[in-house]
Order: sequence, then C-alpha cells, then structure tokens
Amino acid sequence: MTARDLAGVKALVFDVFGTVVDWRGGVVRDLAALGRSRGLIADWGQFADDWRASYPPAMDRVRKGELPWTPVDALHRMILDGLVAKYGLKGLSDAETDHLNRAWHRLDPWPDAVAGLTRLKRHFVIGTLSNGNVSLLVDLAKHGHLPWDVVFSAELVRHYKPDREAYLLPAALLGLDPAAVMLVAAHPGDLEGASRAGLRTAFVARPLEFGAKGKPHQVAAGQFDLNAQDFNDLAHQLLGG
Amino acid sequence: MTARDLAGVKALVFDVFGTVVDWRGGVVRDLAALGRSRGLIADWGQFADDWRASYPPAMDRVRKGELPWTPVDALHRMILDGLVAKYGLKGLSDAETDHLNRAWHRLDPWPDAVAGLTRLKRHFVIGTLSNGNVSLLVDLAKHGHLPWDVVFSAELVRHYKPDREAYLLPAALLGLDPAAVMLVAAHPGDLEGASRAGLRTAFVARPLEFGAKGKPHQVAAGQFDLNAQDFNDLAHQLLGG
Repeated sequence: MTARDLAGVKALVFDVFGTVVDWRGGVVRDLAALGRSRGLIADWGQFADDWRASYPPAMDRVRKGELPWTPVDALHRMILDGLVAKYGLKGLSDAETDHLNRAWHRLDPWPDAVAGLTRLKRHFVIGTLSNGNVSLLVDLAKHGHLPWDVVFSAELVRHYKPDREAYLLPAALLGLDPAAVMLVAAHPGDLEGASRAGLRTAFVARPLEFGAKGKPHQVAAGQFDLNAQDFNDLAHQLLGG
Repeated sequence: MTARDLAGVKALVFDVFGTVVDWRGGVVRDLAALGRSRGLIADWGQFADDWRASYPPAMDRVRKGELPWTPVDALHRMILDGLVAKYGLKGLSDAETDHLNRAWHRLDPWPDAVAGLTRLKRHFVIGTLSNGNVSLLVDLAKHGHLPWDVVFSAELVRHYKPDREAYLLPAALLGLDPAAVMLVAAHPGDLEGASRAGLRTAFVARPLEFGAKGKPHQVAAGQFDLNAQDFNDLAHQLLGG
C-alpha cells in the first residue's frame, strides 16, 4: 500500500470503545466509586473485563435473530443485571443500576484523541463508526469534546460490525466510494471487516485498552494500510508535518 | 407556554436551509460567477427563487411514491436541468452542471449562526433536522464551521418533513421524549409539523431569506413556544445572560 493509494481518502471513521475512549479505565472508575459509596468490595477490573467480554456474544444474539434489534445500552444493561447478581452487589435501586450502566456514556478519551482528531478534521470528514447507539456516541462526544463532523452508528442500519452493512453506511451517506473511507480502529477484527467491505484501514495501538496487565492487540507490519502509535501519529502519517 | 415547560428540553434540532444558512445569497453568488465566466446573462435571483420553489413539489413526488426515495442533491439536479433549459444556459458540461448543483453545499451561515450555536452547544445537544441529505449537511457544516453534535437528516428515515417520521427521528435516536426536543426553524409550516409530532418549537426570523425584496415568514405572538430574532437571541431566551 503506497501513499498514492491513500490519496483518495476523504473521510476517516473511527471505532470508539477502546480506539477513541478508554472504556476500562472509565468503567472501573465508576464501579469503584459506587463500591466506596455503598461499602461494596469486588475486583472491579475483573467486573469491567467481564462486562466487556459479554458484549460480543450479546451482539451475536442480535445478529442471529435470537434477540430483535437491541441497542448497545440495552445489551449493556442485560449483561450488567447478570453481573450484579454474580458479584453479589445487593440493594442497588433500578435508578442506581441505570446510572452505573451509563458509565459507558462517561468514558474519557485517550490523551491524544482530541488533539489528533482536531488536526485530522481540517483535512478529512471525521466521524464515528461504532456499534454504540447514537445517544451513547453523542454523550461521549459531549463528555470528551470529541469534534466529530458526523455520528455513524450500527443503529442506523441495525447491523452490528463486523456485518458488511455497517461498514458501507458512511460511504453511502457521504456519497463516496468505500475506498474513499478509512476505518481507524485498535481491533484487527474490526479492520478486517472494513477491509473486506472495501474500506481503507488504519490500526492504532492502544496498549492500555485492557489495563496495565492486559494484552493489547498487535498487528503485523503491512497487515493494514496504516499502523499508528496514536492519533497524533496517524495525523502525521496522513498529513505530514 | 411558560419557561417551566421548556426546562425539559435537552436537544435543539435545526432546520438548515434558510434557518442556518443563506441559500438564496449563496446560490445567486454561484450562478452569477458562472454567468460572468461564461458570458451568460439572466435574472439569477429569479433563477434561485425558481430552483427553491420547485423543491417542495419535488419532495411531494417522493412522498406520493411517484418517485422512489431520492436525496435532495438528486432532486436539486433534476430541477436544475429543467432550469438550465428554461433559462437557455447553453454549453454547460455535465461536470459544470454538477458543480453548479453543488452550490447548495457551499452556502454560508447567517452571521449569528456559529456564535449562537456555539453557545447553545454548551447546554444542549445541537443537531440538524433537515431534508437535505447527510453529505450535503456535512459539507455545509465543514464549509461554515457549524459545530453540530449530530447530523439528523430525512434521509435516515426516508421521509421528508413535514412527515411525522422525520420529526420523531432525533428523539428516538437520542433516547428522549419528543417534548425534550425543540425544532428551531424560520418556516411556520415546518414548526407546525414538529408541534404536531410533540416537539417544542422555536421560530427564528430570517428577514433576508428571500432577498432584500422578498417576503420573509412572520408569525403571531404565541404561535410557537419561542420567537427569536436570531440564534444569539435564541440562546439568550433559553439560557439568559
């Protein structure tokens, strides 16, 4: 893949959870705060990892038709209700559980995200392309001052990534060829789905996505069109300077 | 309608053409530039007015099923092809006609728009709610630095305003009651449609929408929830200060 192959890219769309925002840090923070206020003790890091790990299987249930279309907020809540029981968190009201579920609406961006996006926005249309529902993505943008031009969500086509329909949505709505759209993500499986649909792909390393002791995703040289250390590096590779 | 009734408003969605951007000024500017470069003479103000006047009937053809779903860019082009013939503009290439059609992507915001939106964005989710297709709305936002949180378009539900489906889209995707969403528009018919769907409504006067000699829309006191002189006045009425 040469620089010339990327000259036609007009829009960058970003996976959000893990790629733009630190889901684990934010979820652990809110779980720990709840624990302190209620005198509850648990391994909050493991709780967060369990919550996240149950999310792809929940989307698969939607994909297979075992569940009707269900937004991520509702999937998160279904999983959370199970984890509250598993971890023995007793006495939470429905409002408290809902507030905890909305921890996913209060996640902070990685430190480089706003600066990198702000630079990229001057040259590209920048948007989300997330399985998160629109309200979740809008709340994250407000919370973290993410300067999106447009919010694309699997909710708009009712197909979760890696379904092809989700990847083709931005190009269709922006009036572009799929090859003029680049997916930016920290997850190889997501990028592989985008590549199959004809999009360009940029891997961004997020070494702390799964915590200091976690195993971040790594990719081979040349596996995707670009391989960046963070969003500032991505801007440097796409724009120079 | 008292101030208390508006305390539940969480999101402001804006009609775009005429309300946020000056369609007539921008279209006349591009028509006149083309005329100068090609030695063509016509009443460009009348041309722009004809173009705009043919747009609601074109949407009606979609609404009635005489046309399949057709984005506004394509409706504009169908109308433009007729006007090019009517006004005797000879010798335009397809690329030149397409460039002219995209005059609608290069419209400037009214002078108060960015400042008012920037202030409102600190307290509300702000988005478009336009019949314009997504790519058109994104281009206008890039061109005019409009700080939208989210781009809602009739294209996402394939129902043009004033169809009820279009007005209910933002609330559904933001997870809000319709009464927590306010439509801001310079056009009474648009606001009436929003009101029928249960949204709050704010009329904003745009005295120059139809040109210096045109007849801008006017409304009676109390006809809508708010009646503002411009977006700064709207921010003042909603937020004080």
